[in-house]
Amino acid sequence: MLTDIALDAMGSDKAPEPEIRGAILACRHLPVRIHLIGRQEELRPLLSDALRGERLPIHIVHASERVGMDEKVASAVRTKRDSSMRVGLRMVREKKAAGFFTAGNTGAAMAIAKMVLGALPGVDRPALAAVLPTSSGSPCVLVDVGANVDCKPSNLEQFALMGDIYARCVLKISRPRVGLLSIGEEEGKGNDLTREAFSLLRDLPIQFIGNVEGRDIYNGNAHVVVCDGFVGNVALKTSESLTRLVRDMLKESLTKTVTAQVGALLSRKAFNAFKKRVDPSEYGGAPLLGLRGGCIIGHGSSNDRAIFNGIRVTAEFAQTGVSAQIEREFAARPVAASPEGTEVPLP
Amino acid sequence: MLTDIALDAMGSDKAPEPEIRGAILACRHLPVRIHLIGRQEELRPLLSDALRGERLPIHIVHASERVGMDEKVASAVRTKRDSSMRVGLRMVREKKAAGFFTAGNTGAAMAIAKMVLGALPGVDRPALAAVLPTSSGSPCVLVDVGANVDCKPSNLEQFALMGDIYARCVLKISRPRVGLLSIGEEEGKGNDLTREAFSLLRDLPIQFIGNVEGRDIYNGNAHVVVCDGFVGNVALKTSESLTRLVRDMLKESLTKTVTAQVGALLSRKAFNAFKKRVDPSEYGGAPLLGLRGGCIIGHGSSNDRAIFNGIRVTAEFAQTGVSAQIEREFAARPVAASPEGTEVPLP
Repeated sequence: MLTDIALDAMGSDKAPEPEIRGAILACRHLPVRIHLIGRQEELRPLLSDALRGERLPIHIVHASERVGMDEKVASAVRTKRDSSMRVGLRMVREKKAAGFFTAGNTGAAMAIAKMVLGALPGVDRPALAAVLPTSSGSPCVLVDVGANVDCKPSNLEQFALMGDIYARCVLKISRPRVGLLSIGEEEGKGNDLTREAFSLLRDLPIQFIGNVEGRDIYNGNAHVVVCDGFVGNVALKTSESLTRLVRDMLKESLTKTVTAQVGALLSRKAFNAFKKRVDPSEYGGAPLLGLRGGCIIGHGSSNDRAIFNGIRVTAEFAQTGVSAQIEREFAARPVAASPEGTEVPLP
Repeated sequence: MLTDIALDAMGSDKAPEPEIRGAILACRHLPVRIHLIGRQEELRPLLSDALRGERLPIHIVHASERVGMDEKVASAVRTKRDSSMRVGLRMVREKKAAGFFTAGNTGAAMAIAKMVLGALPGVDRPALAAVLPTSSGSPCVLVDVGANVDCKPSNLEQFALMGDIYARCVLKISRPRVGLLSIGEEEGKGNDLTREAFSLLRDLPIQFIGNVEGRDIYNGNAHVVVCDGFVGNVALKTSESLTRLVRDMLKESLTKTVTAQVGALLSRKAFNAFKKRVDPSEYGGAPLLGLRGGCIIGHGSSNDRAIFNGIRVTAEFAQTGVSAQIEREFAARPVAASPEGTEVPLP
């Protein structure tokens, strides 16, 4: 049986070409049916050209509008009622698709997904997770990486639970080691938020390993690292930029060190091999956790391969039933979280 | 004229050997006089062996105690009154040295420096700055990287001023571009802290370029990046660990891609060249800004070269008069900062 995936054809910086070619790759190699969402008149000839007569389960679903990469979230949500994001997420809500993937504007995708799909019962704030490579070979789930700022301790508690479930269901880690991102390992270290969150996480039915530091994101010490979305976003964007810097500097050193031709040849091969291991396009995008349905967000610079991997992760997210598992485990929690969001009216 | 530098001989993981050899290197190449602080009976024979009869301006100053790398800050501050850190910083306070360098316990060094030297007038919270490499070649000053958590907007305002002065005085950048670390470039983006700090930074006599993101730390877009110490520490530690991961993965790819011998040879040369550009040992350590005197903190894993560079940076810090400049500019500020630290007693 094929899994139906709604794919935003207007998402990436170079859309819709990478999306079309990524969809074709996915249909060739994975048990999926792709609903390619975007302007029909634009997509039809391009898809037809790319298929060259090959018969694959790819259907075009019309959406007249496109959310721009730098468009303000509020305007995208309010004014574009027929955007490819909205149409795709509506398909998930209506069970016409098992999940949605976009390589478009992250902020807009998160806002539209929350609005169209809604949060699961008991989830106060859905969270964006990033799946990162580590030196141990086993990936690390960093959550939240940008959906929520100014978090309360109870938000971090929920991120820990959802990250743990994702690591178990999708990454197949049987007992994930969950750490709280702080700036020192002892319990008292950190800021007001982490000190309060620490005692909440300690009481959860997870393998809580206490405070971890920035270095533990990449050294394989933790399978899940929990933090406020501001901190997680800074860590993620710092990482992307640093990876580029280190790679470029090494490339330059390499080609300077050996004679130009040999250096270029060797470095091309080595860098391609390296790319397979740390390139974000191999990781397929960041899942939103805690929604009534799957929504995975990829990088704007996604190429064919990144879109293919994004579709793969979206299908895995659906097939492994992460959302249903979050719903079950949140319903089974002994005490419902106190409604901290409720404001006490001033006298 | 030689600049007197107090050097913690008991700081680094492998102390005192790297300190002794680093001091010798520094005295050979820089106009400095080194006061090597630590257990006299231990240092004397090692220094004598390392000097091999060479006459250099290195003096041993006795301190009977050593602050351990994992020692709790409170215990180091309270119980070790004759630690090498305390003796060295006292020399700075008494003007017997122009600056102090240690590769020891960062938390303890910050606490002892604040206690012994004290903050400059108008500085509410001294800050730890990191000087990082960027793809533009010009370094980026990230401040604060761990001295202060749960900052107020006015703390970030002061970090911006001090970072700007450091970039001008020591890095010789005439009009530094100063950014506020956030998770989106528009003014309204970020968390409560950054939104309030934004308007304060905009009114400062600096070249404020607005919000910047994690990627701007390494892409050369900003010369100074301002943030809460929790966020800065996470960014810094994440970076250290990621640099190691990327380097190791590339090295592995390289040696796998070409035949073992050629690969090892080429990669050794390339990685050595790379090291000179991004290795923290070339950057010499993190300066504490806003104190009555210079205190620079290096990495625990410092080798001879890192200690040499730490001494170089400590001397530059003293010679360029950063602390005096901070004092002058803070005194000249139109309105004194409101004493936000003052607590209103509860009725």
